[in-house]
Amino acid sequence: MTDTIAQLCQRLTQGVYVIGVAHGKARNAFTAAWVMQVSFDPLLLALSINPDHSSYALLKESGAFSVNVLKEDQLDLAAHYGQPRSADKLVDADWTMGRLEVPLLRTGLAWFECEVLNAHPAGDHVLTVGKVVGGKLLDPGAEPLTYRQTGDLDGASKITRNGF
Amino acid sequence: MTDTIAQLCQRLTQGVYVIGVAHGKARNAFTAAWVMQVSFDPLLLALSINPDHSSYALLKESGAFSVNVLKEDQLDLAAHYGQPRSADKLVDADWTMGRLEVPLLRTGLAWFECEVLNAHPAGDHVLTVGKVVGGKLLDPGAEPLTYRQTGDLDGASKITRNGF
Repeated sequence: MTDTIAQLCQRLTQGVYVIGVAHGKARNAFTAAWVMQVSFDPLLLALSINPDHSSYALLKESGAFSVNVLKEDQLDLAAHYGQPRSADKLVDADWTMGRLEVPLLRTGLAWFECEVLNAHPAGDHVLTVGKVVGGKLLDPGAEPLTYRQTGDLDGASKITRNGF
Repeated sequence: MTDTIAQLCQRLTQGVYVIGVAHGKARNAFTAAWVMQVSFDPLLLALSINPDHSSYALLKESGAFSVNVLKEDQLDLAAHYGQPRSADKLVDADWTMGRLEVPLLRTGLAWFECEVLNAHPAGDHVLTVGKVVGGKLLDPGAEPLTYRQTGDLDGASKITRNGF
């Protein structure tokens, strides 16, 4: 086959989300595309997360995370929260705390608050299943940002192998 | 909260796929939106599947499935393979057999051939993780069909509960 795996994977349609995590006084948020609904009732979302990221420890310890849906015009937020962690990346005015004590983005399209149900190693990531215990549509008229619109912001084409 | 869960879930961006399964002489294909990449290396895809569907038994027995990406103008195929199974839904001319002995759609945008690695119950679905052992980009210039473009083709708004 002559197609690269990166080219193939670009045909899988995904959104763009900022995942919020916190434990004790530590908190963080990071950009992710690997989020999807996996059950109607109970309402469950799956998030595939890199366990080497510092946010994974917070998620694991607290057993909770938020999924914040970005709007089409929020590519700047996708870039900001996609950077490797330096100091606390969260801009206070943009965030509020949810009932599960995870940060929720006030300025996004919508948020979901999730309790971790279980987690399964999946290659270089961990497939984490969360039960949605709350959610809010913040801007019903806005369009969601799509992963495709972010171009190669996350450098996926460099990470992906060329062949099977 | 006044937003319905269905309205919230519509803000999660997904593609539209036809999943191909086969075991012995039996084969089937069905439309699915709950597909995503979950690992770069090895390249893994996750599919959340309703275990009550007849296709699930074929997937489980064979340990393999294909993910066929639909094009923007293939809403008719999404509807056709989204119907409850009656007779064999597959139109022979449109399908070929892959190396894992699962049907691959010749007329789609791309296909992935996956070996089942493991499966995890997730509410009313089963989250199945597949290792991608092959893939082909059939129409590089085509746009993928998005779940949003299918409207309420799958009746999700009727299945989804109103509140948390």
